[in-house]
Amino acid sequence: MIVEFSIVPLGVGVSVSEYVAKVIKIVDESGLPYRLHAMGTIVEGQWDEVMSLIKKCRDSLMEEVERIIIDIKIDDRKGATGRIEGKIKSVEEKVGRQLKK
Amino acid sequence: MIVEFSIVPLGVGVSVSEYVAKVIKIVDESGLPYRLHAMGTIVEGQWDEVMSLIKKCRDSLMEEVERIIIDIKIDDRKGATGRIEGKIKSVEEKVGRQLKK
Amino acid sequence: MIVEFSIVPLGVGVSVSEYVAKVIKIVDESGLPYRLHAMGTIVEGQWDEVMSLIKKCRDSLMEEVERIIIDIKIDDRKGATGRIEGKIKSVEEKVGRQLKK
Amino acid sequence: MIVEFSIVPLGVGVSVSEYVAKVIKIVDESGLPYRLHAMGTIVEGQWDEVMSLIKKCRDSLMEEVERIIIDIKIDDRKGATGRIEGKIKSVEEKVGRQLKK
Repeated sequence: MIVEFSIVPLGVGVSVSEYVAKVIKIVDESGLPYRLHAMGTIVEGQWDEVMSLIKKCRDSLMEEVERIIIDIKIDDRKGATGRIEGKIKSVEEKVGRQLKK
Repeated sequence: MIVEFSIVPLGVGVSVSEYVAKVIKIVDESGLPYRLHAMGTIVEGQWDEVMSLIKKCRDSLMEEVERIIIDIKIDDRKGATGRIEGKIKSVEEKVGRQLKK
Repeated sequence: MIVEFSIVPLGVGVSVSEYVAKVIKIVDESGLPYRLHAMGTIVEGQWDEVMSLIKKCRDSLMEEVERIIIDIKIDDRKGATGRIEGKIKSVEEKVGRQLKK
Repeated sequence: MIVEFSIVPLGVGVSVSEYVAKVIKIVDESGLPYRLHAMGTIVEGQWDEVMSLIKKCRDSLMEEVERIIIDIKIDDRKGATGRIEGKIKSVEEKVGRQLKK
C-alpha cells in the first residue's frame, strides 16, 4: 500500500521543519521507498511496516513535545506495487506529457 | 490518543454505507469508546489498540473490494483521556453554551 | 454538499480550544446546519456558502496568529441533502440499531 | 498559502487516473505553481485563486460522475511564498543533504 503522512507538533512555535527533519531521518533509515513533498511524506510498504514506521516517528517526537497532530492517508490496492512512481506515470500517460513533480 | 478515521471503497458504486456499517460493527466489538458522525468515526485508545482496530476494518473490507482509501487523523496529547467528550466540553465552556453534536 | 473541516493554529501553545470556539461562533452565525465533534466541524451547504464560511473563519484566526493548518474534506453527491443526519441513519439501518453520536 | 488536494470519484470503478488527468489539465491551465505527487496535487496561491481552481476541477468532474470526495489541506503562513520548494529546502538544510522528491 502507499501511504502519505504528516506530523505537526503543537506548542513549539510557528516553524516545525526541525521536527520534520527528525521524522525524515527515521523514514530514511527504514529502507522503505519514500518521497518528501511540501505537505507530507509518501511511503510504500506493507501495513505493519508503514504503521510501525509512523509509530516510531510519533514516539520520537512525543519525547520532545506534548501534543502532535498526525494525518495519514492510505491508498491500498490489491497486488499493486511501485506506485510512488507508477501512479504519476499513469496520469502522465493520460495527460500526454511529463508533469512537474 | 483520539483518532478519527474513514474508509472509502472504490469500484463498488456510489453508495458505500453498507461498508461503513461493516466497519462500525467491528469498531463496536472492540470495546473502545467511539462516536460515528457523518464524515467518519472517532475512537479513543492507545496507539496499538486503535491501529490494530483500523487494520481489522481494512482487512475485512479488502476481502470484498479491490481498493480502499483510508483517512486517519490522530490527536495525541500526553496524559489526556476522555477527550471524545472532553474536547467538545472545552470548546462549549469558551463559547458559553451547549452545541449541537 | 457536506463538508468537515478543522483549523489548527501554530505557535500559540498546546491548547487551541479558544480558537476552535472562535471558529464555532462564526459557523453558528452562518445559519448553515452544522455539528461539532471532537476532531472537527461538519457543515452542509452549497460550495460557495461553505467555502466563504471557512474563509471567514480563516481570516478571523489569521488576525491573531501567524500560521494555521486547515483540513477540509468534502463529500459532494448530486441532489443529496440533509446528509448530516441522513448518512448516519443510512448506516444505522444497515447495522440494525442506533449508534452513539 | 500552499494547498494540497485530491479528488476521488465514486461509482466509476477502481481506476481513477483518467479523472486525475482531467484535474491536472485544469490545474496546469491555471498558471499557478503546482506539483503532482502520488497522493495529490500541491498548488500555491492566494485563497480565492486556489479555491476557485479546486471548484473548477470539482465542477468538471461532477459533469461526469455522481459523487466525489475531495480532500484539501491548507498551510497558510503570513508573508510566506515560494513554499512548494522552500519547505523542502528548509527540511533538507536540517537533514544536511538532498532528499528524494
